Amino acid sequence: MTTTDTDERVRAGSHSGHFDIYDEDGNVRADFLTQVSHAIDAGDTGFLHRNVVRLHESELGDLLEALNSDLRLALVGLLGDDFDMTALTQVDEAIRREIVDHLPNERIAAGIGGLDSDDAVYILEDLDKQDRDEILAQMPFTERVRLRRALDYPESSAGRRMQTEFVAVPPFWTVGQTLDYLREEEGLPEDFSQIFVIDPTFKLLGGLALDRILRSKRQTKIEDIMRETTHPISAEMDQEEAARLFEQYDLLSAAVVDDNGRLVGVLTIDDVVDVINEEADEDIKRLGGVGDEELSDSVASTVRSRFLWLAVNLLTAILSSSIISVFDASIEKMIALAVLMPIIASMGGNAGTQTMTVTVRALATGDLDIYNAARIIRREATVGLLNGIVFAILMGAIATFWFHDLQLGVVVGAVMVINLVAAALGGILLPLLLNRMGADPAIASSAFVTTVTDCTGYFAFLGIATWWFVIH
Amino acid sequence: MTTTDTDERVRAGSHSGHFDIYDEDGNVRADFLTQVSHAIDAGDTGFLHRNVVRLHESELGDLLEALNSDLRLALVGLLGDDFDMTALTQVDEAIRREIVDHLPNERIAAGIGGLDSDDAVYILEDLDKQDRDEILAQMPFTERVRLRRALDYPESSAGRRMQTEFVAVPPFWTVGQTLDYLREEEGLPEDFSQIFVIDPTFKLLGGLALDRILRSKRQTKIEDIMRETTHPISAEMDQEEAARLFEQYDLLSAAVVDDNGRLVGVLTIDDVVDVINEEADEDIKRLGGVGDEELSDSVASTVRSRFLWLAVNLLTAILSSSIISVFDASIEKMIALAVLMPIIASMGGNAGTQTMTVTVRALATGDLDIYNAARIIRREATVGLLNGIVFAILMGAIATFWFHDLQLGVVVGAVMVINLVAAALGGILLPLLLNRMGADPAIASSAFVTTVTDCTGYFAFLGIATWWFVIH
Repeated sequence: MTTTDTDERVRAGSHSGHFDIYDEDGNVRADFLTQVSHAIDAGDTGFLHRNVVRLHESELGDLLEALNSDLRLALVGLLGDDFDMTALTQVDEAIRREIVDHLPNERIAAGIGGLDSDDAVYILEDLDKQDRDEILAQMPFTERVRLRRALDYPESSAGRRMQTEFVAVPPFWTVGQTLDYLREEEGLPEDFSQIFVIDPTFKLLGGLALDRILRSKRQTKIEDIMRETTHPISAEMDQEEAARLFEQYDLLSAAVVDDNGRLVGVLTIDDVVDVINEEADEDIKRLGGVGDEELSDSVASTVRSRFLWLAVNLLTAILSSSIISVFDASIEKMIALAVLMPIIASMGGNAGTQTMTVTVRALATGDLDIYNAARIIRREATVGLLNGIVFAILMGAIATFWFHDLQLGVVVGAVMVINLVAAALGGILLPLLLNRMGADPAIASSAFVTTVTDCTGYFAFLGIATWWFVIH
Repeated sequence: MTTTDTDERVRAGSHSGHFDIYDEDGNVRADFLTQVSHAIDAGDTGFLHRNVVRLHESELGDLLEALNSDLRLALVGLLGDDFDMTALTQVDEAIRREIVDHLPNERIAAGIGGLDSDDAVYILEDLDKQDRDEILAQMPFTERVRLRRALDYPESSAGRRMQTEFVAVPPFWTVGQTLDYLREEEGLPEDFSQIFVIDPTFKLLGGLALDRILRSKRQTKIEDIMRETTHPISAEMDQEEAARLFEQYDLLSAAVVDDNGRLVGVLTIDDVVDVINEEADEDIKRLGGVGDEELSDSVASTVRSRFLWLAVNLLTAILSSSIISVFDASIEKMIALAVLMPIIASMGGNAGTQTMTVTVRALATGDLDIYNAARIIRREATVGLLNGIVFAILMGAIATFWFHDLQLGVVVGAVMVINLVAAALGGILLPLLLNRMGADPAIASSAFVTTVTDCTGYFAFLGIATWWFVIH
């Protein structure tokens, strides 16, 4: 196969022998994208095989995401059997579905058959039951049984994320026997960082990091150098809990066992990194009121998912407004109240959000627990009080000068203190309460917290002002 | 050493041979904490050596965090040389400083000397320059040089996070020579998952996953099975960029090289997991307006760190209020405007925050780039328009019934549409603009976005109402 001029130009983008498809900002390079697009349009399979097939699965994934829908499907078609299905685990859900829907089920069955079981499960789990069954039906028996077993575990469990390929040896083998087995056995998984030790019934006895084997003499018995597995991961365990074990004990891989303590798979750190990212993503999005939205979601589903949050917010906003309407006579007499109202609400809302953010995050990472909750609540109240005093002076002075009214300034100042203390308490107590009730503190806190701060702020401000200026 | 009754009771909490210091919620078990506290008070070093010394570094860290300050320092004192300094990398900064300040510098120098260099750097980097120099001065020469070199790299760089201990062999060695070297050499790092291949000047040639060595025959040449390092990490590289390479290429460890391509250290996935967590933490906290706050920060530093954000917010709130004050005559004539105003502002603020959250997160994960920005902007505007229409009808109806005024309902409805479209555009364009200017879009977006939505909302609502009811 001769290389063309275009290939040379593509390679020129490479440095230190490695070809880089990204520009400085981390986007797929525009010139590379143009060349690939032209090659797809021209059906130049030669170019595509030379420049696309050798890409890393994540690079291919990024390329697929950068192409428009027509070119994307055409590329998958032109690559044929050389299309690396692992790339499907690297694109977002909408694009994965599009490609999978486009390909015939036989092609998917053949492509998925060559993947590690965790990647295969990742692709299969999003499909309709019918498609999934059709694809599974076309796979070899042992493969099918293994994938079905992983798919039977609950969504987001360790059993779903695990790889069913692993290396396991009996405890009475020597290091030499193990080395010979590794050198001669054909069907071993591609990469592994640990060897497991099992009894004849597949019961997990322990594990061995590879460096322990490399450093031991050939005649050493495996059982003498293996480490007992102190934190086996149950296949039913939630993936977030498993991720926390990896973080706590700095694991690279961990055995996954069934109810009887039998080894059924291995969970690896790269899957755990994905779980950690998903978890952080979830927290951020829930705090922002956008649920589990993805960038590739359709307009219709985005409208629906955001509607609920905005509707909840409308109800709470109406609640605040009805507090204001109670005091409409006061506002009519003193229009400055209407002007200053939003400042009070906004300061309370922001201070409450600050405390809530710290609280939700600390609950998620486990930094906030029963031993320090009381101390943290005291701390937040103190911070609210101190900042309340500072902003009382600032805002009191501003209101005094703005409306030439010292008394109004004093009222604004007093309300600012009440408001920021209430915001601090709301910001920490509401997430703690939601957490205690078993709810995710990230999901509803911010609507509740701003309702508390808005209502407290409006009520304190308009109430005190009414008492001071109107009734008094 | 005989075990006491208390030891037996402590062990009873253990299952499957492993002793668990945590209760179901993941907190340190209350009974264990009480026993440790009593043992510290009684100076029962026997109990502490049997039950605390064997804890994993992260468990010891959690125990230290759960104890109050006096008991914590007493425990460190009682454990003496058996106190595992690695636990200092597992507690938050305030506690780490407290313990380090309490211990004499010789003790710290001795304790740190036994750690992996990345852990040692992690502890040293937070210290005052004077303390750090004193500690380094008491360490052996080679150790000192290595730690100093890592500390010379910029904060948050790969050079700071790397471990300077690694296993490297020349390319002309055979697998057999390598195995013999691994078996006989004493000074090798504790765990490693990769062996590096270097030339006599320490220039990095490639790397070898351990399973490749295990699967190859003794006479195989290293250069025949090594893989060229396609993504060497420069010591100056920001740790977040390094973390992204780990995620993209599913790396377990990676070579860190200096400007001349010489191998200076190794970055491992457990450090990268910490970086990923820190990054997510940063995004969440910046969106919530609490900077880099930690739960253990003092009241004074928390007040200071939150003050700035609240001060910015005060300025933007005053800006919104001055828009309201322009229309004070209209509000005086029609008090319903003052009552409905907060609803308009709150809906705009929440819709803007939704879009901003999705945008900031998509920029952080690299999902939003120049190829889909235009499409996503269109999508957000459409979502804003559609939800605007829905809430226009809802809120228009509510306002009509509340104030028995159809015209007011129509005005509220029209403003709701304008408001949610403006919120969508503000929520996506501001973070994109900040990102383009090289600023972190998470840091300032939410103050700017709510300013935009507040000002648009108040101006549109009061302006249209004034024109319709007052001037018209």
